[in-house]
Amino acid sequence: MEKLTYGMVGGSIDAFIGEVHRKALNFDTRVEFVCGCFSSDFAKTKEVQEAYNLDRVYANYAEMAKTEGSRDDGIDFVVVVTPNVTHYEICKEFLEQGINVMCEKPLCFTIEQGLELEKLAMDNKLLFGVTYTYTGYTMTRVMKEMIAEGKIGKIAAVNAEYVQDWLIGELGEAQGEGSLSTWRKDPNVSGVSNCVGDIGTHIENFVHYVTGLKINRLLATTNSYGHELDLNANIIVEYDTGANGAYWCTQIAAGSLNGLAVRIYGELGSLEWKQHTPDYLTYTPKGEAPRNLSRGAGYIGEGAGRESRIPGGHPEGFFVGFANIYRDYISDLIAQKAGMEFNKLCSYPTVSDGVNGVKFVHAVIESAKDNSAWKTI
Amino acid sequence: MEKLTYGMVGGSIDAFIGEVHRKALNFDTRVEFVCGCFSSDFAKTKEVQEAYNLDRVYANYAEMAKTEGSRDDGIDFVVVVTPNVTHYEICKEFLEQGINVMCEKPLCFTIEQGLELEKLAMDNKLLFGVTYTYTGYTMTRVMKEMIAEGKIGKIAAVNAEYVQDWLIGELGEAQGEGSLSTWRKDPNVSGVSNCVGDIGTHIENFVHYVTGLKINRLLATTNSYGHELDLNANIIVEYDTGANGAYWCTQIAAGSLNGLAVRIYGELGSLEWKQHTPDYLTYTPKGEAPRNLSRGAGYIGEGAGRESRIPGGHPEGFFVGFANIYRDYISDLIAQKAGMEFNKLCSYPTVSDGVNGVKFVHAVIESAKDNSAWKTI
Amino acid sequence: MEKLTYGMVGGSIDAFIGEVHRKALNFDTRVEFVCGCFSSDFAKTKEVQEAYNLDRVYANYAEMAKTEGSRDDGIDFVVVVTPNVTHYEICKEFLEQGINVMCEKPLCFTIEQGLELEKLAMDNKLLFGVTYTYTGYTMTRVMKEMIAEGKIGKIAAVNAEYVQDWLIGELGEAQGEGSLSTWRKDPNVSGVSNCVGDIGTHIENFVHYVTGLKINRLLATTNSYGHELDLNANIIVEYDTGANGAYWCTQIAAGSLNGLAVRIYGELGSLEWKQHTPDYLTYTPKGEAPRNLSRGAGYIGEGAGRESRIPGGHPEGFFVGFANIYRDYISDLIAQKAGMEFNKLCSYPTVSDGVNGVKFVHAVIESAKDNSAWKTI
Amino acid sequence: MEKLTYGMVGGSIDAFIGEVHRKALNFDTRVEFVCGCFSSDFAKTKEVQEAYNLDRVYANYAEMAKTEGSRDDGIDFVVVVTPNVTHYEICKEFLEQGINVMCEKPLCFTIEQGLELEKLAMDNKLLFGVTYTYTGYTMTRVMKEMIAEGKIGKIAAVNAEYVQDWLIGELGEAQGEGSLSTWRKDPNVSGVSNCVGDIGTHIENFVHYVTGLKINRLLATTNSYGHELDLNANIIVEYDTGANGAYWCTQIAAGSLNGLAVRIYGELGSLEWKQHTPDYLTYTPKGEAPRNLSRGAGYIGEGAGRESRIPGGHPEGFFVGFANIYRDYISDLIAQKAGMEFNKLCSYPTVSDGVNGVKFVHAVIESAKDNSAWKTI
Repeated sequence: MEKLTYGMVGGSIDAFIGEVHRKALNFDTRVEFVCGCFSSDFAKTKEVQEAYNLDRVYANYAEMAKTEGSRDDGIDFVVVVTPNVTHYEICKEFLEQGINVMCEKPLCFTIEQGLELEKLAMDNKLLFGVTYTYTGYTMTRVMKEMIAEGKIGKIAAVNAEYVQDWLIGELGEAQGEGSLSTWRKDPNVSGVSNCVGDIGTHIENFVHYVTGLKINRLLATTNSYGHELDLNANIIVEYDTGANGAYWCTQIAAGSLNGLAVRIYGELGSLEWKQHTPDYLTYTPKGEAPRNLSRGAGYIGEGAGRESRIPGGHPEGFFVGFANIYRDYISDLIAQKAGMEFNKLCSYPTVSDGVNGVKFVHAVIESAKDNSAWKTI
Repeated sequence: MEKLTYGMVGGSIDAFIGEVHRKALNFDTRVEFVCGCFSSDFAKTKEVQEAYNLDRVYANYAEMAKTEGSRDDGIDFVVVVTPNVTHYEICKEFLEQGINVMCEKPLCFTIEQGLELEKLAMDNKLLFGVTYTYTGYTMTRVMKEMIAEGKIGKIAAVNAEYVQDWLIGELGEAQGEGSLSTWRKDPNVSGVSNCVGDIGTHIENFVHYVTGLKINRLLATTNSYGHELDLNANIIVEYDTGANGAYWCTQIAAGSLNGLAVRIYGELGSLEWKQHTPDYLTYTPKGEAPRNLSRGAGYIGEGAGRESRIPGGHPEGFFVGFANIYRDYISDLIAQKAGMEFNKLCSYPTVSDGVNGVKFVHAVIESAKDNSAWKTI
Repeated sequence: MEKLTYGMVGGSIDAFIGEVHRKALNFDTRVEFVCGCFSSDFAKTKEVQEAYNLDRVYANYAEMAKTEGSRDDGIDFVVVVTPNVTHYEICKEFLEQGINVMCEKPLCFTIEQGLELEKLAMDNKLLFGVTYTYTGYTMTRVMKEMIAEGKIGKIAAVNAEYVQDWLIGELGEAQGEGSLSTWRKDPNVSGVSNCVGDIGTHIENFVHYVTGLKINRLLATTNSYGHELDLNANIIVEYDTGANGAYWCTQIAAGSLNGLAVRIYGELGSLEWKQHTPDYLTYTPKGEAPRNLSRGAGYIGEGAGRESRIPGGHPEGFFVGFANIYRDYISDLIAQKAGMEFNKLCSYPTVSDGVNGVKFVHAVIESAKDNSAWKTI
Repeated sequence: MEKLTYGMVGGSIDAFIGEVHRKALNFDTRVEFVCGCFSSDFAKTKEVQEAYNLDRVYANYAEMAKTEGSRDDGIDFVVVVTPNVTHYEICKEFLEQGINVMCEKPLCFTIEQGLELEKLAMDNKLLFGVTYTYTGYTMTRVMKEMIAEGKIGKIAAVNAEYVQDWLIGELGEAQGEGSLSTWRKDPNVSGVSNCVGDIGTHIENFVHYVTGLKINRLLATTNSYGHELDLNANIIVEYDTGANGAYWCTQIAAGSLNGLAVRIYGELGSLEWKQHTPDYLTYTPKGEAPRNLSRGAGYIGEGAGRESRIPGGHPEGFFVGFANIYRDYISDLIAQKAGMEFNKLCSYPTVSDGVNGVKFVHAVIESAKDNSAWKTI
C-alpha cells in the first residue's frame, strides 16, 4: 500500500509535544514521516532529520510549504507544533499551498484569524484537525457514545475542571523569579489569556465533544494574582438546551498535575471521567450504584470500545490518545485522496472546534473584565 | 457532678435527625435528657418519654418553654429539630423564656428573623448553637487548625461542592409524582430555596469555618427544572481577601449521596476533605506529593487532633460529628453557669453563623433572579 | 417498657474500648446501665459511677457477680472489657452466677478455657456474645446476605488481610524502647500469639461470618523480628468446600491503620469490603463492571440493608458497628426473658465463634513452629 | 547515525503483543525494523512486510536465523513473540547464529532449557533480554531506586498479587465451553502451569527487580477447579534475608483486569505500586502519612525519575513500559557494538531473570503437588 506522507513544523528533538506527535504517528503504518522544518536553528532541524532518516528538511516553513505544495510527491499533511503565537501564519501558509493541516491547540489568538483559517480549509476542501488530546482516549469516545445512545438521558448539569499546580510559584511575594513561565505572562506571546487559553479550552472542547452541547452564553471570573494574565478562572456556562454547567481551570492548585475531570449528569444517570485514570469511566444509572467501567472489558461493546488497542487493565496512555486522533484523521485523508466525501467521518476535533475554542477564551476574558456579565458565544 | 439537663422539641421516635441528636448527646455524660415535646401527636411524644424514661413531656412547645423557663430545675438548653419552617417561632419562644438553644440548620427563613434571634440571644446572654454537622468532624477541625497555622499560606482559590442524587426523580416528564419531596418544592414550607437552603448553606458554613474567609459578594445561577424551587445551583464567590471560589450544590446528580467535598488552595499548599471519608484529609505542601492524613495518627499532633475519640483507622462517623459539636456547646454552657465568660470558647457554629447562612441563601437566589448579577452579603 | 439492665467489668473512664461499649449501648433505649467494677482502683470505679449516675459499684468482680446473681433486680448481662488475660476467669464467674455475658475478643487463651466457657453458657442457657466488631457494620451484613442469596455463586477463592503499622517501631536495632507494647510481647499476658491473636482472628471471624465457610486446615509462617511473639503472619487456609484462601495480618506495615480488607470471589461474581470505608461494598457480577454499593442507598433492599440507621453518604462509623451487635444481642435477651427460644436469632458472634478464634490462633502458631505444616482445626 | 536493525519472529498484524513490541520499538530512533517471519502462513508475513516497508521476510525462522546470521548487514537483534511453547527452540537458533535476542516471557518451559539458553548467550557474549513488562514503567524504577537508597530501610515483609478475571468462565458446571483458553489448559502447550506461569511469574520478577531480594524457598497451594492446570495460586516465600512474603495470582477474580499490586514494607517505611495506575507510587515514611508520588513531579528527582518521557499527570501507559525496556537494551547493544563492556548497564530483565522465572514456576507447582511442602529455588 502506498503510504501517506507528512512533514512537521516545530518539534526539535527536545521538544516535548513534537516528539509525542511523532511517536503517535508512528502507531499508524499508513503514514510516513518525510520532511520538516523543526527549528529556526537549522542544526536542530538536521538533528531530527538524522534521527528519523528524513528525505528532506527546510530552513523555514514558508519554503517548506511552497516546495511541498508544488512537488508531485509533496506531503499529504503537515503537523504544526510551533509556539502558539505562530500557529495562524504557519497554518495559513500550508493551507494556501493546498496542504492538509493538523495543528496543536490553541488554533490561534483571534476569532478573525480562526475564521479565516476555517474558511481557507473549507474553500480548498482541506482537512484541518486540531489536537485536543483528551478526545483521543478510548473511554472519552465510549463516554460520547453512551451519551449519544441516551444512557444518561437529557443532560441536566455539567461540572468540569482542569486543575494544575505548576504555576503555584507565581503566587505570593517571591513570584516572578522563574524563567519557565515568562512567555505565558506576556500577552504578545500568549494572547489574551494564559490559563483559560492553555487548559480551560480543553474543558470547553471536551464537554462539547462528549455531549454535543453548545454554549449559548457564559460568565466568568479570572484571577491573575498580580500578573498580567490569568492563572485561575471560574466559569458558569448556559447551554443551548437550557441546562447550565460550571467550569474551573487553574494552574496554582498544589497537588494536581493535569487534573482534567468531567462529570455529566442527566435525567437517567451520570458519567464521570478523569484524565489521570483515562482507561476508566464511572457510570451511574439512575437509582443504581456507580459502576467503574474499564476500557477493554467485555461489557464495553462494539462501538467506540472497538477503538481500544490493548486488553483492559493495561493503561493505554497519552501517546495512544494522540494516535487515536491521528487514526481518524488519516482515515479521512485516505477518503479524501480516493475522492470520497470526507469531513463526515470526523470524530477528531477540526478547525471549527479550534475556532470555538478561541471564541470561548475571548468570551471568558471579556466577561471577567466586564464585572462577570454574561457573554454570548 | 450535677448534670446539665436538656429537652427537645421535635424528634419523634422515627425522626431521623432527632434520634441522631439524642444519640450524640448520649456521648456526653455531663448532660441528662429530661423532657420534651416531640410531636403534635401527644401519643408520639409519650413514646419518646417511655423510651428515654423522661421526667416530663408537653403537648405543645409554648407550654414547654413557659414551664421550663419558670421551674427551678428547668432545662439548661433545648434542642430544636422540628420542620425548618417552625424554627424561628420555637427558638424565639425559648430564648424569651431565658433558655439556651441548639437548633438544626437552617436557622430560619428570613434575614430579619435571623437577626431578631441573634439579638435575643445576645441581649439575654444565652448560648445559641446551630448544628452545621460537618464542622464537628475531627479532621474538619484539624483542617481549620492547619489553615490557621499557615500550613497552606494565604488562600488563593476555593472549590467546594455538595452533591446529592435523591431528587433526580424530579427531572423529566415523570416528575412530581413522589410525595417524598413535596414540601421541598413549596416556598411556604421551604422558604426561598430548596437546594441552596438545604445543602448549599453547608458549603458556605464549612468554608467559612475552616478558612475564616468572609464572602464579600457572590453571583449565581440556579436550576429548578420546571419546579418552583431550585434543585441545582452554581455560585461564584469573592472573599474579603480578594480571592474567589466556586460552589456547586445539586440534588439531581446520579451516584452521589452526601458528597460534600471542599478543596482549599493556598500559596504554600492545599487541603482537601470529603464527607464520605471524613477521617481523612489530603494535604499537599507546595512542591511535594499529596499526603493522606488520617485522624488518630501520631503525626496529627496535639491541637485539634486531640479531639479524636478512637484510634485512627476506625471511622468515627456521623454521630461523633454531632457529639463533638455538643461537647463544645456543653463546655460553654458549663462556663456560662459558672459565671465565666462564654461565647469565647466557641468552636461550634452559633446563631451568627445561622444568620450568615440565611444571608447567603438569599443572596444566591437574588442573584439568580437578577440575571446572575453580583450581590453583596 | 421495663428496661434490661447491664453492668460492666473493666472500662475505667480513660479506657478506650470500655467507653466505646458504653456509648454503643447508649444507642439502644431498651437497656439501662446500672452497675460495675471498672478498675482494681476503686476511686476509678467511682469516677464511672458518677459520670453515669450508677446505682451501685463493686470493688471486685467476684463480689459483683455474686451480688448481682442473687439480687432480684440483678443485671441481665455483664460486659467484660478487661485485659485479655482475665477474660476467662471473669466470664466464668458471671456464667456460674447465671448472668449473660458479652465479652471483648479474644475470648480467652486456651482451647480448653474456651470450650469450658461455651459449655457453661450452653448448660445454663445463657447468652454469651463476643464483640468481633466488624461483623456489626451494616455493609458487612449486606455482604453476608448477598453471599447467602447466591449473588456471587459458589466461592472459589478468598483473600483477606488486616494490616496495621503501630508496632513498626519494634523492628530494627532501636526496638524495645516503647512501653506501649510491652505486654503484647509477653506470652504470660498475651497468650501464644500477639498479632494473630489480636487482629488475625478478626480475619478468621469476618470471613466465616460473611461466607459461612469453615476452615478444614491451614498452614502458616509468622515473623517475630527478634521478639518472642509474632508481629506478622501469612496463612493459607483450606475450607470445607475445597476452596482455599490467603490471610495476612501484620502490625509493622507503614501507612496502614486498621486495614481489614476482605475479598470474596465466587463463580458468579465477587464482593470486596474495607474497614476504612465500611459504608461501601464493591460488588462485581461476572462479566460486568465493579459497582460501588453504598449503605443507605435505595438499591440495597429490604434485608440486611434495613439495619442501616442513617441515610447513605453519612458514615455510620465504629460506634454503630458495636451498637448493631448489641441490638441483636439485646433482642435475643428479650426473647430469652420472655421464655422464647433464643440463640436462633443470632446474627452476632457468640462464645462458639470465640472458641473458633482461639482454635485458629493456636493452629497458626503450631503450623509456624512446625515448619509450616498443615494443621487441622 | 547508523541505526541498529532488528527482525521479529511471530507477531502477525492482528497479534496483540507483537504489535506492542513494534510500536514500542518505534519510540526509539536508534533502531530500524528490517525483516521478520511473522507467521507460518507466509501471506500473513507479507502483510507485515507491506505495513512496515520491510526489506526482507522469511518463510520460517530457521532460514531467517541462518540468513541474518551470515549477512554482513544482518540484524543486530531479533524479537521473539511466538507462542510460549516455541520460545526455546527459536531463541536457541538465533543465539547459535550469533544474534542478540529479546524474548517475550515466559522464557521457556523447563529449567534445563533455560540454563542452556543462558549459557549460550553467555558463551557467545550475546545480549538476551526478556520482556517482563512491568519493570519498564518509570515508577517501577523509581521504586527500585528508593529501595536501593534505603528509603524504607531493611525489608520486613512483602505482599504482592496479580489478579485477573478473564478465566472466571472456567469455573462451575458450564466450564470448558470457551475456545479462547483451550491452549492454556493443555500442558503440552502451556508447560507445567497456566496461571503461575502466565502471571505469577510477573510477581516473582517484579519483586526481585525492585527489591533485589532472592527467594530461598517457597510453599504453595494451587487451585485448578477441575481443569488440568492451575487457575489460582497462593504462595508463601522466604527470602535470603529471612523476611517472608505472600504472593497471590489468579485468573478467576471477577472485577480485576491486570491487577498487579506490589507492597514492600521496611523498617523505615513502605512503598506500594499498582499496575492499573502505573504513574503513581504510594510512599509512607515511618510515622508519617502516605504520600502519593507521581511520575514527572519535581520531587521525583534526578535518578530513575529522569526516565520519564512526558510531564506528570499524563499517563505514559503500557507501550512506554516496553519502550523503556527497549531503550536500555538498545543502549547495551550499542555499547556491545562499540566493544564496550555490556551487561553491566542492564536495568532490563535478562535471560537469567527468565531462568529464575522458570525455576519459580516449577517450585510452586512442585510444592502444591507435595502437600505444600517448602521447596528451595
